[in-house]
Amino acid sequence: MKITTLDDTTKETVRMEGASGVHKQVPVSKQDGSPHFSFRVFSFEPGGHTPFHAHPSEHVNYIIEGSGTVVTASGEERPIKKGDFVLILPNEKHQYRSSATGHPLVMICAVPVEYE
Amino acid sequence: MKITTLDDTTKETVRMEGASGVHKQVPVSKQDGSPHFSFRVFSFEPGGHTPFHAHPSEHVNYIIEGSGTVVTASGEERPIKKGDFVLILPNEKHQYRSSATGHPLVMICAVPVEYE
Repeated sequence: MKITTLDDTTKETVRMEGASGVHKQVPVSKQDGSPHFSFRVFSFEPGGHTPFHAHPSEHVNYIIEGSGTVVTASGEERPIKKGDFVLILPNEKHQYRSSATGHPLVMICAVPVEYE
Repeated sequence: MKITTLDDTTKETVRMEGASGVHKQVPVSKQDGSPHFSFRVFSFEPGGHTPFHAHPSEHVNYIIEGSGTVVTASGEERPIKKGDFVLILPNEKHQYRSSATGHPLVMICAVPVEYE
């Protein structure tokens, strides 16, 4: 059993091309013995964003704090806020963007252990 | 893509033997097309608890609100509170208990899609 908090988890800046003002923590991963999936947390700076991209695995998200948008494959910006759950399907193009004002986005991004 | 909230998700009482005062919602599951894992949310009444049990799959939890304890295989009660992440390993005996006072426990419990 592992019990931890974000305060006890290393934070690193996301260096991926197309990402800006996003920081990552991984409170639960295969390094803890999780056999199927990992919980990552992305903390955004105001106006920060992930790349507009797609990948073979799904994301399951929970918005811990703040607000922003998810850009869909067609370019639509769908609003997200604290308390929302989001499922991004495999190979579905998407981008997360934090609001530029108010509390910036903090969200869980669960992925298969192949990622973390 | 699916974006939803707990307010838009059906809530049912957990009828499992050994559970008391626990309600379940499943905002993201295989019914939404998630290929690997599902997000369930358990909302406890004050003093509510899950069974003291084990199963072949892990749990990955995030405490959305409230506080309580996780009982470990050895019977130790480890405190959990809003903001904590918990990994229960496969076949590790455990029980979640909500505090009887203050805000009762509300937590994400992620499981492989074989469960939901």
